[in-house]
Amino acid sequence: MAATVTIASGATWQEVAADRQKYRDATLAAIKPSIPDIPSPSLNTISIAKDILTKEEIKITESKVEELAPQLAQGELSAVTVVEAFLRRAALAQKLTNCITELLPSRALERAKYLDDYLKTNGKPVGPLHGIPISVKEHIGMKDLDNNAGFIGWVGNIAPQDAYILQIFWNAGAVFHARTTQPQTLMHLETSSNLYGSVERNQERLYRLTDRRVTTNPYNSLLTSGGSSGGEGALVGFKGSCLGIGTDIGGSIRSPAANCGVYGMKPTALRLPVLGLLGPAGGQEQIVATIGPLSTSLEGCKLFIKTLLDAKPWLKEPTLMPFPWKQEDFFKGKKLKVGVLWDDEVVKPHPPVTRALKQMVDKLKSTGNVEIVEWKPYKHDLAWEIIANLYFCDGGKEESDLIDVSGEPWRPLSKHILKSRHVETHTIPSMYKATIKRDAYRVEYAEHWNSTATSAGPNGELEGAVDVILSPAGPGVAPKIDTAKWWGYLSQWNVLNYPALIFPVDKVDVVKDGGTQSHSPRNETDKENWELWQKYGAEGYKDAPISLQLVGRGFEDEKVIQAFEIIQKETGVPFV
Amino acid sequence: MAATVTIASGATWQEVAADRQKYRDATLAAIKPSIPDIPSPSLNTISIAKDILTKEEIKITESKVEELAPQLAQGELSAVTVVEAFLRRAALAQKLTNCITELLPSRALERAKYLDDYLKTNGKPVGPLHGIPISVKEHIGMKDLDNNAGFIGWVGNIAPQDAYILQIFWNAGAVFHARTTQPQTLMHLETSSNLYGSVERNQERLYRLTDRRVTTNPYNSLLTSGGSSGGEGALVGFKGSCLGIGTDIGGSIRSPAANCGVYGMKPTALRLPVLGLLGPAGGQEQIVATIGPLSTSLEGCKLFIKTLLDAKPWLKEPTLMPFPWKQEDFFKGKKLKVGVLWDDEVVKPHPPVTRALKQMVDKLKSTGNVEIVEWKPYKHDLAWEIIANLYFCDGGKEESDLIDVSGEPWRPLSKHILKSRHVETHTIPSMYKATIKRDAYRVEYAEHWNSTATSAGPNGELEGAVDVILSPAGPGVAPKIDTAKWWGYLSQWNVLNYPALIFPVDKVDVVKDGGTQSHSPRNETDKENWELWQKYGAEGYKDAPISLQLVGRGFEDEKVIQAFEIIQKETGVPFV
Repeated sequence: MAATVTIASGATWQEVAADRQKYRDATLAAIKPSIPDIPSPSLNTISIAKDILTKEEIKITESKVEELAPQLAQGELSAVTVVEAFLRRAALAQKLTNCITELLPSRALERAKYLDDYLKTNGKPVGPLHGIPISVKEHIGMKDLDNNAGFIGWVGNIAPQDAYILQIFWNAGAVFHARTTQPQTLMHLETSSNLYGSVERNQERLYRLTDRRVTTNPYNSLLTSGGSSGGEGALVGFKGSCLGIGTDIGGSIRSPAANCGVYGMKPTALRLPVLGLLGPAGGQEQIVATIGPLSTSLEGCKLFIKTLLDAKPWLKEPTLMPFPWKQEDFFKGKKLKVGVLWDDEVVKPHPPVTRALKQMVDKLKSTGNVEIVEWKPYKHDLAWEIIANLYFCDGGKEESDLIDVSGEPWRPLSKHILKSRHVETHTIPSMYKATIKRDAYRVEYAEHWNSTATSAGPNGELEGAVDVILSPAGPGVAPKIDTAKWWGYLSQWNVLNYPALIFPVDKVDVVKDGGTQSHSPRNETDKENWELWQKYGAEGYKDAPISLQLVGRGFEDEKVIQAFEIIQKETGVPFV
Repeated sequence: MAATVTIASGATWQEVAADRQKYRDATLAAIKPSIPDIPSPSLNTISIAKDILTKEEIKITESKVEELAPQLAQGELSAVTVVEAFLRRAALAQKLTNCITELLPSRALERAKYLDDYLKTNGKPVGPLHGIPISVKEHIGMKDLDNNAGFIGWVGNIAPQDAYILQIFWNAGAVFHARTTQPQTLMHLETSSNLYGSVERNQERLYRLTDRRVTTNPYNSLLTSGGSSGGEGALVGFKGSCLGIGTDIGGSIRSPAANCGVYGMKPTALRLPVLGLLGPAGGQEQIVATIGPLSTSLEGCKLFIKTLLDAKPWLKEPTLMPFPWKQEDFFKGKKLKVGVLWDDEVVKPHPPVTRALKQMVDKLKSTGNVEIVEWKPYKHDLAWEIIANLYFCDGGKEESDLIDVSGEPWRPLSKHILKSRHVETHTIPSMYKATIKRDAYRVEYAEHWNSTATSAGPNGELEGAVDVILSPAGPGVAPKIDTAKWWGYLSQWNVLNYPALIFPVDKVDVVKDGGTQSHSPRNETDKENWELWQKYGAEGYKDAPISLQLVGRGFEDEKVIQAFEIIQKETGVPFV
């Protein structure tokens, strides 16, 4: 429902935020049986689910998409039962991590009933997502509901219809059960806003010294869930959703997926539909945002992408490239060749990341079925300069105005990105120049990749070239609140528009990751990042998931997925 | 070779132009046997070739790519013999139409000799274009040669290497024999510049009342060859080349192809390589230029596109979309459905165009093998506003400065486009807004196309939708000099990024196209266009080729070609 308490109606930003939280809480209160108060605070909240939910609810919500889908399609599980379980777990997730902007119990249950009836009447499911609950990042418009993209000034904006992606998922049988948090400006790798309030009081005590207006990590309440799809990260990480929709222009799907130990994919931009999303900088096409899945399983991510492509979205959204889902077997009679990026040479990753990467590489080397080579980073510092500059060609004016119009305070990471030294107020000629610089970098990076070929034919054959890059997903695991400042490990692949898959590997272990390491700082960002590790150590990041990233060339999304399937088979990842 | 007489060296624009013409003439003088003076002026220059060239030269130059290629590959024709014939005919074309910026006899002959030796030694051709002479629009960089894009101020700029497209064609066995003219700014649908001088004196007399610094139509010297790839149009139209490279951002391949009665294709942008082209507005990506073929045959166009795609150019030029050449049979067990666009409802086409279109439609209807429906134009006036605005987001400053730096006079059509009322000096926010408007139009046009479906499934199926649009290629045939002002029939498909194929149908006939027709003008442009026909009538456009255009949806290039093959088979087009 549209908000009536808005800046336009004369309310203060605090009143708007309070009203939105009241609205959200009412949607939570509608969940039956209601979720009791949490008896005592926990740093790692994951196990709390078992104390609160029924065994059946636990079983359902801990099932993966590929386990639920056939049971729902055959009527072994009813869509109502499934969505009720996920609604309860999502309500609990909100209490623990502050990841929800609203739950959708009445819509979801009505839909689920329809699906159950449909199956009974027709003896077949509506489509491949029949009865699968899907959670949705707030700025993806949902008919008749508020659509504010994290700006208090935009509260009161009503989506006239469902975003195109939701229409496709709806036609495929999905149930939308939850809308999730995002940060102010959508441009943080955390989820900190003035809108979405805080978690339950008991849980709050744990991190009373930090700002409360954030979404926290279900594995460690003192860490961020990541962002900007941080509500999705926390919710899927807590298993309040098995499949969620996020968006990514610099890491916004991958940071929360990595921080919360779930699968997440940033597909190549211009493949999946983004019509009907609300955000600033519409018309900016220097760096193109993409939409994609967060899921408790790789199969969930695959089904998400395939369902969308099977609907031929390019026929309605002509900006998209008409690539169907590729069925081709990319590694038939061919050994997978992986380039390993240990360090981007700008910001050195914290020890747990390097340990997990080494674990992976050692396993892969031991089987001998995958070829491993080093991947030398090519000017990743320049890549960051280019993208940080092109995000806000107007010098960030639109975003700044959108914050200022309501008088809401600037969140620290909004300042970090909008007031970065790389941002400038472009004229058209200077923007053209910056675009040329981007294209030149893309050509150079392509040459860099081509140079890994062992032979190059006259007709573009690149025999023996690296297939995918195995890379950190960040300069550390889930960061402490307001410290997620280095985007490079993620935004690198947005500059280049390469697809990238996040997968869980391990978790921070106070024994394995203990001890000290010295490192001579390369620059301010590197210094700051390393000092965080020096200050907090493994204990400070306890239980945080360690995830890695697999990257392919533009539009090789399916190849990246297949490469990961080989890697998973060879290594048995995740290791916990 | 690089020019030494340049603005930077202190020369006047007239001196620079004179030096470039002298340089060009020297390359023509190197052609042996030399081309004699033309005995008497001709309006239609086509038949002059038979008076000047040998029978063998005529036979070779009137062969199509698909006839030459196998003979060259099997050594039945030597590459040297072939290129010598085309060089002579190209030299003659220059005398008659002023279409050449320089011939390349020494490079071309050296290359041809190499190819002949290669074939002798290896018993196989270098590649699919072995020995095929290719002509190249001047702004496509050629190593160590001047590269000025039609601006006197840019004379002296040397290309550091061959444009990427030339590298691929080189690897496929091509011979580059001629570089061709383009207009000042590259943004005319004619070819009028201060650089490339005029044609031979005898021929000049014919059109002494018009400006001489233009490339003229080989079929009627008082008409334009079109532009901006007008040198290619005239040269291929005169058969001084069987395959040429043009570029198109608003009709620049298609206008010359249509005006000169040859095949020409604007492929979907972002498929074929454009690295190494010189032009203003680099970094402008609101409307993307494309490169493509002009050829005396459809097969020539196909071979051009297929050869480029087979080289997987996206691996080196990552802006390109990795679509290989599609082998699929698009009309297997399916009737081709053609939408006929008679009139864009902005500017009514002259009678010969409508007659040719009617001829086509009548033939197609008579066989019954192709389904014909009317295609209603959807806001083509708005489309023009959008594209004319987005071409020059800086208000045309870069182009204007590039003209003014040398003091060269503004050509009339440079003023027409750069001083159009749709041009504005954008800020970043206003440009974002204009981009959003473009995208909204694209979505609406896609819906318009989708609405032709007879049934629409839930998963994007569009059963019974129109496959291709059959459309005029302009509001008339080849225009009188400096009157090509309405781009809409061509630029329409650039706004939408749809592929479009030009093919010859008929020619203006003073009997069939005589008589008068009344028409109430819809707007100034329509009035001006219709008055031209009232003033000159069929006699004024005598012998001008009439061409039409076949258009498909984005990235359906191969489908457009296959649809044309069906149409050609059904109708027997061209009719002359």
